[in-house]
Amino acid sequence: MHLKKETVVSIINTIGELNQLQDVDIILSSTLCEARSLANADAGSIFLLRNGELEFRHVQNDTLFGAKESGIFQYSAETLPISESSIVGYAALTKEMVAIDDAYAIPDGVPYQFNASFDDKNRYRTVSILAVPLISRGNSLVGVMQLINAKNRQGTPIFFSEQIKTLVPIFTNNAAAIIERSILNRELILRMAKMAELHDPEETGVHVQRVSAFCAELYQRWAENRKIPRWEIRRFRDIISQASMLHDAGKVGIPDAVLKKPGPLDDDEFLLVKQHTVYGAKLFSSISSELDQVTHDIMLYHHEYWNGIGYPVGLNGDQIPLAARITALADVFDALSSKRCYKASWSNEMIYKEIRNDSGIHFDPELVDIFFEITDILHAIQMKFK
Amino acid sequence: MHLKKETVVSIINTIGELNQLQDVDIILSSTLCEARSLANADAGSIFLLRNGELEFRHVQNDTLFGAKESGIFQYSAETLPISESSIVGYAALTKEMVAIDDAYAIPDGVPYQFNASFDDKNRYRTVSILAVPLISRGNSLVGVMQLINAKNRQGTPIFFSEQIKTLVPIFTNNAAAIIERSILNRELILRMAKMAELHDPEETGVHVQRVSAFCAELYQRWAENRKIPRWEIRRFRDIISQASMLHDAGKVGIPDAVLKKPGPLDDDEFLLVKQHTVYGAKLFSSISSELDQVTHDIMLYHHEYWNGIGYPVGLNGDQIPLAARITALADVFDALSSKRCYKASWSNEMIYKEIRNDSGIHFDPELVDIFFEITDILHAIQMKFK
Repeated sequence: MHLKKETVVSIINTIGELNQLQDVDIILSSTLCEARSLANADAGSIFLLRNGELEFRHVQNDTLFGAKESGIFQYSAETLPISESSIVGYAALTKEMVAIDDAYAIPDGVPYQFNASFDDKNRYRTVSILAVPLISRGNSLVGVMQLINAKNRQGTPIFFSEQIKTLVPIFTNNAAAIIERSILNRELILRMAKMAELHDPEETGVHVQRVSAFCAELYQRWAENRKIPRWEIRRFRDIISQASMLHDAGKVGIPDAVLKKPGPLDDDEFLLVKQHTVYGAKLFSSISSELDQVTHDIMLYHHEYWNGIGYPVGLNGDQIPLAARITALADVFDALSSKRCYKASWSNEMIYKEIRNDSGIHFDPELVDIFFEITDILHAIQMKFK
Repeated sequence: MHLKKETVVSIINTIGELNQLQDVDIILSSTLCEARSLANADAGSIFLLRNGELEFRHVQNDTLFGAKESGIFQYSAETLPISESSIVGYAALTKEMVAIDDAYAIPDGVPYQFNASFDDKNRYRTVSILAVPLISRGNSLVGVMQLINAKNRQGTPIFFSEQIKTLVPIFTNNAAAIIERSILNRELILRMAKMAELHDPEETGVHVQRVSAFCAELYQRWAENRKIPRWEIRRFRDIISQASMLHDAGKVGIPDAVLKKPGPLDDDEFLLVKQHTVYGAKLFSSISSELDQVTHDIMLYHHEYWNGIGYPVGLNGDQIPLAARITALADVFDALSSKRCYKASWSNEMIYKEIRNDSGIHFDPELVDIFFEITDILHAIQMKFK
């Protein structure tokens, strides 16, 4: 088979674009989006291998959701076993692509069955399916992508062509390597956060994961409301997801005697604690990428107040970088809703009241409004990272 | 132009292989190697943009060095300005590919000149040159690659064909994204090391960079001596380069009172210091890649002794993972040759004597022999990271 130069160059360019991204969820969602575009598929979902199961990560469906991805699926705790019973599980088990021309007329003699619950619930009609295992070098399984309903020029569902069945795995196998690498990258950043935690036992790994996800979602809605282009949203969401995980990493520079003091801090001690913002920024003082810049800004300014009475500088309003304003809200929200050794967790009602009261004082009022627009997603994040 | 499916799939596969790698120098050297293979070029070099200059990183030349890359160039401090005077500098300045059919018959009217010093020194004859800027997304320059002497089937130098001039940039633009990402990754690991340093002012960024490079070179020679396949050498060298940077990161878990004590430590305090191996291993206790495994092993075992009297476990000989045996030697060598606040640096003679004496006691005897085989490269590393 000869491939058109344009098609091939477009695949290679897409791989190049994925390579620019670092955050695993953004890479997963982009992989699905680009594969759907290559195959002209109406819908699709993507699953990540984790602890021997397939974790449900992203769903896209032009007919049902349009261009906007339904954000809530990303924080779903739903998993599929790697087994013969489902189409996706079977593709994972055999590491072979499964192509189905009509989901409601699967030939006899195959072990898997089509699960119609999504169709029933959403009044959707799945016709053709292409379940592609995501295989990285060394033949290891990273996840499974499922494309639904290839469309002809009139938009009618058709089966996936031989051409598509050749092209999609060329793309997804490269994407698998990028996904695998992004998982390692995320773990590295989590470990950096964990290093601070080793020094400060009050911090926990799930706290940084929640703050990171809160920040990503607050930014996403902020940017959508402002009609920021989609590629720019994807790019900056990638950056803030990672950078916000490190907001407190500068705590490694604070003396134990202060950080681990059981009782309340005196003024001098509190001055030392405030230094964690400056220490953190020092770690990212040599800036060679926007990720470095944003990490630096978040570390330095996540304790600034909208009204200017925060620390370490006392910036106010828009002077505080957006990423730091977002992290401030996410960090406080998580602290309020978490149980710490010195306090119980608050009720949602109390938390919401506190955040509303602090709008324009501690927090950017626009972000507080957005916070209340997306409480369902924020709640899904809390459920996922308990 | 229609491209052959095999050629295209091979380029995509090569990009996939590069994507498996993390360490910037290994990616640079692999990029050069694969581009030469694509263009059937006898030789080539690759430069990385750093602080506004082009840093000379890798040279490959089948005629002069054979398949073995001359390791010493990697630690060269040589740079080229981004300017019209050199071919490589011109490609960087204009961000355009420069193709030259005969280096000794460059047409009039171009600003750059061919620098014949390498040819003269090595009795080599450069004929054709393809200088390709490495451009990442956003049109930012990452470096320049120079291919030398395309060969026909008889091995005679010819000019670079139009086909090659189309294919090489498709490959290198993707490689550029991977190189850029690997630089960010390296900086992230360096920052993890710097976090430990924030807690322990005795440690310095250049120490971890030297130890990392020593480990890479000791492993390379060890593996070459044992006739390990080349791809496996490349793979493990990539892993040990990164993992060894974090050997002391567990020090963040040690109380300040001990770590920063000016005088000698008592027994209890020394017990606490020894815990940095265990704390470090704890950071990498959830293992999801070989990089995690090796980092864990290095952190936990880099103070073990070949004769079994080390800590924390008291393993001996081959029980100690190879990466930890290598890091032990690299770490001690660097400590001996560095000036610290409590001691002057030793002379080479004294250091060599100490290392020889400790062969079979502290260090793996095979690694000590290798150490003395590559002192020229180790010295070049010391010069580069002063």
